[in-house]
Amino acid sequence: MKTRREFFKVAGTGLLAAGVSSAYGAPVFQQAQEEVKDLFGLGIAGYTFREFSVEQSIEMMKRVQVSNLSVKDFHMPYNSTPEQINSVISKFRAGGVNVYAVGVVYMKTEQEVDRAFEYAKLAGVKIIVGAPDYALIPYVEKKVKQYDIRLAIHNHGPDNPLFPNATDIWNNIWDKDKRMGICIDIGHTTRDGKNPVFDILRYGSRIFDVHIKDVDGATKEGKTVEIGRGIIDIPGVIGALRKIGFTGMCSLEFEKDMKDPLAGIAESIGYFKGAMKCK
Amino acid sequence: MKTRREFFKVAGTGLLAAGVSSAYGAPVFQQAQEEVKDLFGLGIAGYTFREFSVEQSIEMMKRVQVSNLSVKDFHMPYNSTPEQINSVISKFRAGGVNVYAVGVVYMKTEQEVDRAFEYAKLAGVKIIVGAPDYALIPYVEKKVKQYDIRLAIHNHGPDNPLFPNATDIWNNIWDKDKRMGICIDIGHTTRDGKNPVFDILRYGSRIFDVHIKDVDGATKEGKTVEIGRGIIDIPGVIGALRKIGFTGMCSLEFEKDMKDPLAGIAESIGYFKGAMKCK
Repeated sequence: MKTRREFFKVAGTGLLAAGVSSAYGAPVFQQAQEEVKDLFGLGIAGYTFREFSVEQSIEMMKRVQVSNLSVKDFHMPYNSTPEQINSVISKFRAGGVNVYAVGVVYMKTEQEVDRAFEYAKLAGVKIIVGAPDYALIPYVEKKVKQYDIRLAIHNHGPDNPLFPNATDIWNNIWDKDKRMGICIDIGHTTRDGKNPVFDILRYGSRIFDVHIKDVDGATKEGKTVEIGRGIIDIPGVIGALRKIGFTGMCSLEFEKDMKDPLAGIAESIGYFKGAMKCK
Repeated sequence: MKTRREFFKVAGTGLLAAGVSSAYGAPVFQQAQEEVKDLFGLGIAGYTFREFSVEQSIEMMKRVQVSNLSVKDFHMPYNSTPEQINSVISKFRAGGVNVYAVGVVYMKTEQEVDRAFEYAKLAGVKIIVGAPDYALIPYVEKKVKQYDIRLAIHNHGPDNPLFPNATDIWNNIWDKDKRMGICIDIGHTTRDGKNPVFDILRYGSRIFDVHIKDVDGATKEGKTVEIGRGIIDIPGVIGALRKIGFTGMCSLEFEKDMKDPLAGIAESIGYFKGAMKCK
């Protein structure tokens, strides 16, 4: 697969660009470094803010300087009117937050599929992070074509018989429309005994969205921890995303300290950004 | 200079060690990776907690899982009795915090030097992060020898004529006792137009302590920001510390949002730990 990772020659620390001269010459400054400009963005998966209002969520996102959100239904109920949806989306936009996806949306009937796509269309997003019942996949494919909205199926590990891992998703969508793909949750992947690095590489052509997090064990008992404190190979995940030329969002789904998550969100985002500096 | 960086062969993500078998073979798991075991530790420079009590400081350190502290005098006044010093140190220890240094301690008279060394001895630390007036350096050297306590002189950039950068410190201590060295503040170094990567490499034999932070400009006007949001080449700093075989502490001195610093502390610590994963 052709990588779309791009390299830019930039001055070491930006000091040279700032026009700062060094008293002792500048051998380090003048060493142009290869710096990676990643094509993927950082976001937050809305579930992170389960205990908080739209306004509080915006404040936390500002605090950690992350502007992309996959909005969850507790902030924008499925039975909202178009005006209500517009109001929520506008509120986020006014707060500097780009709602790029909705989800995770579970779909158990054709009516719920219809509703999900209409909801996504009204929200103005081009991607639904979702989990339709297996039997609904052919029906969902029709809607994907009709709306030109991509579906990224979310894997939920050993907790749920519905799409435990990316292999299961792939087996159900590989022969379907190319707008049907995967939102790989690297935590649940690990809790299901699978390696997210390997799955990202293997299913790269259909990875549309990523839920980033860390977990403290590779079994069902594994719990969410701050990114960097668990067992997931984060630089490996980032390297795999670069290899597949991922242009979507890596959205933090932080499921610890849910009533007071800001410190954990900040540490996780910080760690991921730090690891993105690895070549 | 011989590097003391050590390599350990470890399983990729720890999954192998956990005995998890993969449904599709385990080519990634079995790829043993070289993982760096850093010889330096992470800490907090006490100034970060200027607005908080000892108890609140302990709570924040627990939250970010950082256990080493360079204690500042507002938590342990210089005129404390031995009992008072013992009480503060014990409180930190009971909270899981290792007080490894005192400082930054400014010393303007011989009496203040005497007091600083007695204070450090009572606190049980082997290092004073300090800034004695230039004229006191010969006197300080005597005390360093007498107490066998190291002095790490802290550079304060363009704010202060006293020790603006590591070169100035080096010029004043290179011919003194080897227990006299540098606490390089990478933020003030950058604000002074110097490159901390270069200074760490150049003065490596005398770097005893590091104040980590990030700044948004390479001039006096540069302000502290969360690590990763500024202009400092953090992976470069880490690489330089590995090259010199640094075995001391990298202590975060976070000088933004001082009344509500936890999110910024967490993001900074996260970023630094993430960047430590870079080879």
